[in-house]
Amino acid sequence: MIWQVLLLMSVIFMVFIGPASAETMEENAAAIADLQTALTFMWLLIAGAIVFLMHAGFSLVEIGLTRTKNTANILMKNFMTISLGIIVYWAVGWGIMYGADYAGLIGIDQFFLMGADNAVWNGWWFQMVFAATGATIVSGAMAERTDFKAYLIYTILMVALIYPVYGHWVWSGSGILTTGFIVDAIGVAHHDFAGSGVVHSIGGYSALAGVLLVGARIGKFKNGKPMAIPGHSLPLAFLGTLILAFGWVGFNGGSTLDANDPFANLVIANTFIAAGAGAIIVMIITWMKTGKPDPSLTANGLLAGLVAITAPCGSVSNSGAFIIGLIGGIIVYVGVMFNENVLKVDDPVGAIAVHGYSGSWGLIAVGLFALGTGEGSILEGAAYTAETAGLFYGGGVGLLMIQLVAVVLSIVWAFGISFIIFKILDVVIGLRVSEEHEIAGLDVVEHGISAYPEFLLAKE
Amino acid sequence: MIWQVLLLMSVIFMVFIGPASAETMEENAAAIADLQTALTFMWLLIAGAIVFLMHAGFSLVEIGLTRTKNTANILMKNFMTISLGIIVYWAVGWGIMYGADYAGLIGIDQFFLMGADNAVWNGWWFQMVFAATGATIVSGAMAERTDFKAYLIYTILMVALIYPVYGHWVWSGSGILTTGFIVDAIGVAHHDFAGSGVVHSIGGYSALAGVLLVGARIGKFKNGKPMAIPGHSLPLAFLGTLILAFGWVGFNGGSTLDANDPFANLVIANTFIAAGAGAIIVMIITWMKTGKPDPSLTANGLLAGLVAITAPCGSVSNSGAFIIGLIGGIIVYVGVMFNENVLKVDDPVGAIAVHGYSGSWGLIAVGLFALGTGEGSILEGAAYTAETAGLFYGGGVGLLMIQLVAVVLSIVWAFGISFIIFKILDVVIGLRVSEEHEIAGLDVVEHGISAYPEFLLAKE
Amino acid sequence: MIWQVLLLMSVIFMVFIGPASAETMEENAAAIADLQTALTFMWLLIAGAIVFLMHAGFSLVEIGLTRTKNTANILMKNFMTISLGIIVYWAVGWGIMYGADYAGLIGIDQFFLMGADNAVWNGWWFQMVFAATGATIVSGAMAERTDFKAYLIYTILMVALIYPVYGHWVWSGSGILTTGFIVDAIGVAHHDFAGSGVVHSIGGYSALAGVLLVGARIGKFKNGKPMAIPGHSLPLAFLGTLILAFGWVGFNGGSTLDANDPFANLVIANTFIAAGAGAIIVMIITWMKTGKPDPSLTANGLLAGLVAITAPCGSVSNSGAFIIGLIGGIIVYVGVMFNENVLKVDDPVGAIAVHGYSGSWGLIAVGLFALGTGEGSILEGAAYTAETAGLFYGGGVGLLMIQLVAVVLSIVWAFGISFIIFKILDVVIGLRVSEEHEIAGLDVVEHGISAYPEFLLAKE
Repeated sequence: MIWQVLLLMSVIFMVFIGPASAETMEENAAAIADLQTALTFMWLLIAGAIVFLMHAGFSLVEIGLTRTKNTANILMKNFMTISLGIIVYWAVGWGIMYGADYAGLIGIDQFFLMGADNAVWNGWWFQMVFAATGATIVSGAMAERTDFKAYLIYTILMVALIYPVYGHWVWSGSGILTTGFIVDAIGVAHHDFAGSGVVHSIGGYSALAGVLLVGARIGKFKNGKPMAIPGHSLPLAFLGTLILAFGWVGFNGGSTLDANDPFANLVIANTFIAAGAGAIIVMIITWMKTGKPDPSLTANGLLAGLVAITAPCGSVSNSGAFIIGLIGGIIVYVGVMFNENVLKVDDPVGAIAVHGYSGSWGLIAVGLFALGTGEGSILEGAAYTAETAGLFYGGGVGLLMIQLVAVVLSIVWAFGISFIIFKILDVVIGLRVSEEHEIAGLDVVEHGISAYPEFLLAKE
Repeated sequence: MIWQVLLLMSVIFMVFIGPASAETMEENAAAIADLQTALTFMWLLIAGAIVFLMHAGFSLVEIGLTRTKNTANILMKNFMTISLGIIVYWAVGWGIMYGADYAGLIGIDQFFLMGADNAVWNGWWFQMVFAATGATIVSGAMAERTDFKAYLIYTILMVALIYPVYGHWVWSGSGILTTGFIVDAIGVAHHDFAGSGVVHSIGGYSALAGVLLVGARIGKFKNGKPMAIPGHSLPLAFLGTLILAFGWVGFNGGSTLDANDPFANLVIANTFIAAGAGAIIVMIITWMKTGKPDPSLTANGLLAGLVAITAPCGSVSNSGAFIIGLIGGIIVYVGVMFNENVLKVDDPVGAIAVHGYSGSWGLIAVGLFALGTGEGSILEGAAYTAETAGLFYGGGVGLLMIQLVAVVLSIVWAFGISFIIFKILDVVIGLRVSEEHEIAGLDVVEHGISAYPEFLLAKE
Repeated sequence: MIWQVLLLMSVIFMVFIGPASAETMEENAAAIADLQTALTFMWLLIAGAIVFLMHAGFSLVEIGLTRTKNTANILMKNFMTISLGIIVYWAVGWGIMYGADYAGLIGIDQFFLMGADNAVWNGWWFQMVFAATGATIVSGAMAERTDFKAYLIYTILMVALIYPVYGHWVWSGSGILTTGFIVDAIGVAHHDFAGSGVVHSIGGYSALAGVLLVGARIGKFKNGKPMAIPGHSLPLAFLGTLILAFGWVGFNGGSTLDANDPFANLVIANTFIAAGAGAIIVMIITWMKTGKPDPSLTANGLLAGLVAITAPCGSVSNSGAFIIGLIGGIIVYVGVMFNENVLKVDDPVGAIAVHGYSGSWGLIAVGLFALGTGEGSILEGAAYTAETAGLFYGGGVGLLMIQLVAVVLSIVWAFGISFIIFKILDVVIGLRVSEEHEIAGLDVVEHGISAYPEFLLAKE
């Protein structure tokens, strides 16, 4: 009898507690999954906000390093870049980049975010603030002599096509740089964590095409020798640079796309170690070369460190990040000198060297410094990290090769398509303002106003 | 025997594992609930921080669009608005807005956050950064000729009374716009997600009252024709505008008041789609009207899109947001022209059109574009969303009607009470500085300093 | 038979469901723990980012309150402070502060973050952005006449040694201010929540040492009477101040070091109540003293409130925070007057009063206003809060005494070591630029550029 009572109690216990347990446990598990998602949503909303503010940073750097007479124009260009960028990336860009894949080359649905749910809105927000960045980079390099209307049309095409097509190749999961015959041939997929290539190289080499076509500003070269045209506000240039550095927390940190991934911490540590190294080395170089540490080149050194570490930040050690930043700084110094003295191109803000050359360096650096996620690596088991080790860490040349392929592809695509677009714009509406207008300044000519109407300015 | 052993083992299993399970399961559930709360706390702390920075944005827009001689004064006004705002909303405002309800009209306890716990401190922080915004809007419209002391007293009353009373009506859960006889009569509760009405309309129509009483700046109207008085720094105006846009991530995103609600993603996507649309349409309008795209009006177009989407952002589709932003932009352009040419009021920053008119449009837009949370809607089951669909989505006129009631109430309350307060201030201490002082500039007169002492300025 | 079937079913149920339950429950618990960690990681990454932006705030306040001719130099100093700070705190500072303890005085491993995991990278990021702050404070006080190279060397030593050694004493958990014979003698451990002492006092008293050695700027004192040398841009000074206030959300909020601790909400509420109080009282004082409310002193009043509340913000009531901020404001006003008129030292930005004196007041305020975490306190059970109540809340003099010990130690350490370092620098490379260079301005002399090359400036 006692056994039967016990047994009945057992059964009753299981009926009431057991299933209840199971239910609550599943409820708990579901609630946990919801929390993990909510945490990631929040992380990307905030990271995206921080990246959004980078558009203020780009604006300030660009006006700070150029002249008062073109300030309103530059502010408008950057402001319309993000304003148009939002709408164009909503209507077209996202679909091209993340829509259903066609042949590894392009996405072909989700235009106007058709059928979006919260995960798509979240992803769109974070990707959208990246998308307009490419055009902003171009804006800086072509500042002070480019036609406003031509620039706007170019921006629309950048956000609708140039950026998202290359982005599809790298980040869609079905693009030609992470799957398909190239990857099969080399045996390793391309890794560009937060966009040294996707964002910065694409912007930088597009800028190079634009700068070659639009030509140098009047007075930049005298008998083939580059002349300094000082920017009108160092405080705004530095404020902009620091806002950009702040923005990189969102840019690289958010690119984990998962707030539950603890390697976001390594990402941020590496990002800022590279930034510091880039700034320090350029200060030292300019100090040694000219006897005086140069502020705006030093600021570009920090940015070069940031651009360079953008691809490898989740895949390398702290000391790797230090060296990558250091070399990024050297590249930006050499690159600026090369552009001015050899290529004879006029890039008022150094965008081609900072975003183009250092961006390519960032891609290559992955192939050299990646630790890999194999056993024994401090990155063992990390997601969102280059799986294979780089050349310096025993991974062989595979990763380096696919990274070099991406370097070449990003240059060919960005330079090529931008050259074609700018050429057409030049023929159809004229890429460059008239000499008279350039001398008068774009603020008065294009917008009928002055950025600083009360301040007395030096005659040129 | 075997059965008895089995049974005993079962019982032992249940004694040791079962209850332990239950306990841990409950512990897990409790830990999950704590995490959900912690996530919301963090979200609102960060969102509030981002909104706090909007006070820098408002300051910069206001000084950027006005003259150097009043810059220190404007900086001080905005700085004291938030400084006083913190203390006044702590001492009085929060209690009026969220204290125990009296007759649906006003809150009557929790002054000085008496009895607060962490949830209240969290809520207070997020609401406090909103509260000072109303006064800041007024500051912009009345810039360059208002007495500093009068403004400070007005600010205290705004944060203690004007804003929180209307806020109580809409957001306390027991106010006359969400419960009681008006709502019963119409059958639908008012919906103002993040404050197109509560924050922006209240600020905008209070500004209108102030501007009517204080009069136009000397030189603004010549023979009844409005003259342009250019702002002294477009870079600061644009930096401010971008900081404000950044702030809207916290303003609208945080207004979910729940980080676990995934519809925060829709909120942010809609917010920025409307912003982009507002900027683009105003650029186009000014380009067509004058032949040149106007920078400061375009910046106001973006802000108008943001103000307009503030109420409907959690209740409409992306294309709804696009249209709402577009119309917001048109309203700000028409509104500025109407204010200058018809009303003949002088609003240096366009605050009345941006915050007042576009704010009202935002409330109306909810009544037109809300998708509703019913079956089949993409917002099915969403909290913090207008439950009923708007007129364009088959919900009938109910929601539109209650929104129109709120539009009227917000205008009557803000304009009425502010008119009375400003009138009293005018009689008692004088609302406007003397002509002599206005010409000399408020910086020297009110603060004994100059904002830019080293720069040579043009004579007016 | 039926019983046996039931029993078998029970056993089967337990075998399949029971253990599965237990397993999933443990999985749930593990997932919850991971989420708690992930939430804290995210909170500190974001809080650190916000604190990073404070370096822009410090730069702007410092250039805003000084003259155009030294602007590029100040921007470079602040920029290199954070750039060097990153690398030095990575290589040395973190190890000294948080490495394995030696004698309660210093940490001795983890240099170059050797052996770091994600928790360390997370902690390093948040601590690193604090570390460079001390040097930045010194930079402000010594602006406009200090040799660039000497400043850089000092900065390296600040981040490698001065700051982390004192930080080890307070925050490492094994330092002499929280464990060991001093604490045993008094019976209460020192409490400095977010660094009124660790960051601000150390910076402030180091600045005092530097200012005494470098001497006043040419023209600051005429016949022993202090002369006003107006800063060149009030807008940048105010923007900087608001960015700093924004930064304090990360500074104090992040210092919970735990996103799951709901008392972060009290921390933020108290932080901004003190800030508001500080600004208001200084505005009133300057208004009463001179007849005109002084903008830059009022801005310093807000900062003084923030500095003062930095230590006690997690341990006091809202009204306590209000009084602490109020007194912080009074201290900064009196402190600035004392420095100029009695000590006759020249501190262009008021850093010694804001960070040094108000920082010490913050430490003392803990000893007076702490509520304690005992039964009945609103802080019952709170972690990261001063356990013992302060003098005004029945806790006796113990806490006050250990706080006073820390005040003395922070002054002796920071002033002493900085005095020695600056003295050596003065002897070896010269702390001060030549009179000729000072008059010409450091921008041209040290960097060969002008910060505002196009603007016409008044002759001095």
